[in-house]
Amino acid sequence: MKSLFRFIHTSNSHRRLFKAGKATGTMSLPKGQVFSGIQPTGVPHLGNYLGALENWVALQDEYSTVMYSIVDLHSITQPQDPQILRDNILDMAASLLACGIDPTRSVLFQQSQVAEHAELAWILGCLTSMPRLRHLPQWKMKSMEKNEGSVGLYTYPVLQAADILLYKSTHVPVGEDQIQHLELAQDLARIFNNQYGEFFPEPRALLSVTRKVKSLRDPSSKMSKSDPQKLSTVFLNDTPDDISLKIRRAVTDLTSEVTYEPESRPGVSNLVSMHAAVSGQSVEEVVRLAKGMDTGQYKNVVAEAVVEKLQPIRLEIQRLRADRGHLESLLAKGAEKARGLAVPVMTEVRKLVGFYYGN
Amino acid sequence: MKSLFRFIHTSNSHRRLFKAGKATGTMSLPKGQVFSGIQPTGVPHLGNYLGALENWVALQDEYSTVMYSIVDLHSITQPQDPQILRDNILDMAASLLACGIDPTRSVLFQQSQVAEHAELAWILGCLTSMPRLRHLPQWKMKSMEKNEGSVGLYTYPVLQAADILLYKSTHVPVGEDQIQHLELAQDLARIFNNQYGEFFPEPRALLSVTRKVKSLRDPSSKMSKSDPQKLSTVFLNDTPDDISLKIRRAVTDLTSEVTYEPESRPGVSNLVSMHAAVSGQSVEEVVRLAKGMDTGQYKNVVAEAVVEKLQPIRLEIQRLRADRGHLESLLAKGAEKARGLAVPVMTEVRKLVGFYYGN
Repeated sequence: MKSLFRFIHTSNSHRRLFKAGKATGTMSLPKGQVFSGIQPTGVPHLGNYLGALENWVALQDEYSTVMYSIVDLHSITQPQDPQILRDNILDMAASLLACGIDPTRSVLFQQSQVAEHAELAWILGCLTSMPRLRHLPQWKMKSMEKNEGSVGLYTYPVLQAADILLYKSTHVPVGEDQIQHLELAQDLARIFNNQYGEFFPEPRALLSVTRKVKSLRDPSSKMSKSDPQKLSTVFLNDTPDDISLKIRRAVTDLTSEVTYEPESRPGVSNLVSMHAAVSGQSVEEVVRLAKGMDTGQYKNVVAEAVVEKLQPIRLEIQRLRADRGHLESLLAKGAEKARGLAVPVMTEVRKLVGFYYGN
Repeated sequence: MKSLFRFIHTSNSHRRLFKAGKATGTMSLPKGQVFSGIQPTGVPHLGNYLGALENWVALQDEYSTVMYSIVDLHSITQPQDPQILRDNILDMAASLLACGIDPTRSVLFQQSQVAEHAELAWILGCLTSMPRLRHLPQWKMKSMEKNEGSVGLYTYPVLQAADILLYKSTHVPVGEDQIQHLELAQDLARIFNNQYGEFFPEPRALLSVTRKVKSLRDPSSKMSKSDPQKLSTVFLNDTPDDISLKIRRAVTDLTSEVTYEPESRPGVSNLVSMHAAVSGQSVEEVVRLAKGMDTGQYKNVVAEAVVEKLQPIRLEIQRLRADRGHLESLLAKGAEKARGLAVPVMTEVRKLVGFYYGN
C-alpha cells in the first residue's frame, strides 16, 4: 500500500472497529474538511492497517467531512498491468470498507471517476514553476531508480495538490515523507489566491506519532507488501492458519523472555507492539500479561490476538468482494458525492481563471 | 491569434464565405476526423484569416467530421487577465462563426468545457518521458524568454496530443512550427497502442502552402496581433475607415509601379498578395489589373477589396457579440457535441488503462 498522505496514530486508538450506525450527531463534530488518498495496491497489510487505516476510521468521528480517495490516476505514474490494477482498485475498496470506512459518514471514491481532479491539476500546473518540483524527494528517488521518469511522475505532486484543494480541504493527515508535497499544496493555494483572489484555504497537516509495524522476517525494516519473503507480511485477508504460521516463524532472538526493547530486541518488541495495537492494550499491559512465557508460547498468544482482530475484516472483505455489483455501486455513489462537492468549487475556479463567461 | 495547429492554404480558395445551408450530402465527403485548436486571443486579424481561418472554413466541405476548439486551457500557460480572457473567448467564438465556421457542419467548442482533455492529458503524461519535451521549440523559446517557465508550459504539447487523440483524429492541419508537436501526438498514439492494444489512429499532418500576410508597417515581419505599431495590423472587426487608413499608410518603396517581387519589393508585394487573396483572383490577374496605377492609387483599390471582404465579417461579429446568450448557447451545444464524441473514447481508454472495472 502506498498511501499518498500517510497517517498517523492519534492517541485515541481504542475505539471499536465497527460503529453501530452513524456518529452521534455530526453537528457537534468540529468543522473541517479532511482529505486523504491511497493508491490502489490491493489488499493492505497489518502495517497499513495499524499505521494508517485505523486512523482513517477514527477520523470519521472527528471531522464533519472526511474524504478518502483511491487514487488510481497517481498509480499509473508507474507502469501498471491493467487487469491487476482493476482488481487492486476493488480489493482496496473492499478492504477500506471492511476496516470500517463507513460510506454514510465519509466519501469513499475512486479518483479517476471525478474528472475535476485532472482539470484542477492542469490549472495548478500553470502556476507551478518547473524547478519547484525538481527537488521533491519522490521524484529524486524514483527517477534515479529508473534513470528518467515520466511527466506524470514529475508532476504528480501537482495532482496531489489538486486532490486536496479541489475539496477546499482544511486538514490533511500526512506522514513525514509527504510533508514537502503538502507544502506544495499550501504554496499553490497561496499563489492561486494571490493571483485570482482569496479562494482556497491553506490546508494544514495533521501530524501525530506514527505506529510502525516491522517485517516479521527482518524487524529492521518496515512491513511491506513487496517484501520478497512471503512470511514477512500479514495481509488483512490472510487466513488464521496463514497468520499463525507467519507469526510463529517471526524472527526473534536467543533470549526467551518477552520484553519491549525496540532498539536491542526489535523482533520480540515488534510482536509486543503488534499485540498491544490489535488488542487495544498498552505495551506495558501486554508485557505484564506475557510474564513467564517464552517467546514461542507468546507467539501463539500474539497470533491469536491478531487473528481475532483480522478475522471479521477478512470475512467482510470476502463478503464485499463476492458482490462486485454492490461494490461498484458504492464507489459510483461515492464518486457522485465527491463530484457534488467538486463541481461547485471548479465552477468558481473556472470563473476566477476567466474560462467561464456566465454571470 | 496563436493557432496551435496552424493552417495551410488549399488550392481551392474561391469558395464563397457563407455557404447556403448544409454541404451537399455529407455522406460523400471522405471519412476523416479533423481537429484543430486556436487560442482565445480575441478578434483575429487579416493574417489569421487568410493564413488559417479561410482554410478552417474550407475543410468543412472536405471531411466528414471537423472539430475546432478554442483552447483556453492552453492559453493559461502564459499569465492571463481573467476578464480579458473571458472576453477573448467570446470574441474568438464570434469571429470564427462570422468567418464561416458553421456549427451545423463542424463542432466548435471551448476546450475547458470538456473535462476529458485534461483527463487524457494526465494519462498521456504518464507515458511521456521528461526529456522528450525538453527540446521542443516552444518550450525552449518561451522558457528562455522568462528564465523559467511553468509546468503547464512544459507539458502543453502533451495536452495538445490529448486534444488530438481524444477524438481519434486522423488529420491535423499544422503549420511548420507545430510539426514537432504533432510528432509527439503520433509517438504517444504509438506508445499507448503498444502498451494497451491498438486503439488510437496515428494522426497525419495536413501540410500545404501557407499564405503569409506581412505587417503593413514592416513587411519583413509577419502581421501580428501584438505589433506595437497600431497601423501594422488589420483586424477582422476594423471599420472601413480604419482599414483604408492602415492600407493607405502601408510601407511600400520609392518605385511607383505595382509589381509582385516579394524579395526585392516586400511592401507592395504584400498588398498584391492580400488583394489577390481577398478578391479570389490570382496574383497575375491582380497585377494586370493594377497596370498603369501608381502605388498610391493601387492602395485605394486594395483597401476597397479588403473592406468588401471584411465588412460582412465585421457586421456578423458585431451581431453575434450583441447577443451573448446566443453565443454562449452555441458554445454550450458545441461542448455537448464534443463530449458526445469524447466520452465513449475516454470510457474505452479507462477500460484499457485499468481504471474501469465494468464489463
